[in-house]
Amino acid sequence: MEKNKHGSGEQPREPRGSSAPAFLLAQVGAHAASRFAETLRPIGLSPAHAGILRILDATPAITQQALAGALGSPPSRLVALVDELEAKGLVERQANETDRRRYALHLTAKGKAALQTIGNLVREHQNALLAALSQDERQQLTALLMRIADQQGLRKGVHPGYSAMSGDRRDRA
Amino acid sequence: MEKNKHGSGEQPREPRGSSAPAFLLAQVGAHAASRFAETLRPIGLSPAHAGILRILDATPAITQQALAGALGSPPSRLVALVDELEAKGLVERQANETDRRRYALHLTAKGKAALQTIGNLVREHQNALLAALSQDERQQLTALLMRIADQQGLRKGVHPGYSAMSGDRRDRA
Repeated sequence: MEKNKHGSGEQPREPRGSSAPAFLLAQVGAHAASRFAETLRPIGLSPAHAGILRILDATPAITQQALAGALGSPPSRLVALVDELEAKGLVERQANETDRRRYALHLTAKGKAALQTIGNLVREHQNALLAALSQDERQQLTALLMRIADQQGLRKGVHPGYSAMSGDRRDRA
Repeated sequence: MEKNKHGSGEQPREPRGSSAPAFLLAQVGAHAASRFAETLRPIGLSPAHAGILRILDATPAITQQALAGALGSPPSRLVALVDELEAKGLVERQANETDRRRYALHLTAKGKAALQTIGNLVREHQNALLAALSQDERQQLTALLMRIADQQGLRKGVHPGYSAMSGDRRDRA
């Protein structure tokens, strides 16, 4: 039963609250996010990039402004992310037909192919992450999490990390 | 059904993958972590501080070295956190009885009182976070998350944030 790696006589015991669902959500959630970032690293994308590609897929011709609004993200950080995706050839900015001052964002063919790859990686990641659970249990978990997300007013498909992105310095806190 | 706040004609639609359990875990987990940090802010502590207090409560006289090992945390960052807790009068460093070069960490009376306060705040936080679920459903969620945490080899009571603490700069990634 002992998984502890310290050889000393100071084996840490399990702290109170370790099995509380709020703690487990934060713990397993951070692990899921970090594993997802590792999953994407070989293709040179971050979870933030992948999230933007998925939004552009669902809502072609969205403006940068609407995208920033959808993500709750500071526009400056969003522009940098879109610049990176444009430099990789995955996204194009096109003058908006109704308002030429605003750019509409589109996936390129390469961007659509990247989304396919991301989809495959996400499935592998999810199967590895949820290996302990049966298909039924995965559905139970999904249903419980969706109800929490709805009740808490979380935006569908938007990781809260976008809204913190430009203020993400622990030493400022 | 429309909860979108953007007045334009570019209502973002729900991206693919928004209802995948791996995504929901990361999304709800980040929300839980950020709400927990907000819950603790009025008492001047961070989730990292609270986690250390809980470990000291479970394992009195743990050395800094063993604590860093338990958290998977870079020792330099851990020393800074313990310094902060000592400055607040919540933790004491005492010379270790068997090895005087090493300090053993103890909660002070004030630290024990802070843990009580944290426990109360955690309960309020958890009730607010899980308001959508019945008690039975909270237990189901807890059981599913514990099985994922065990299978993924997560350390009980240790948020993965500790191991990233000293390298926690997005612009380095």
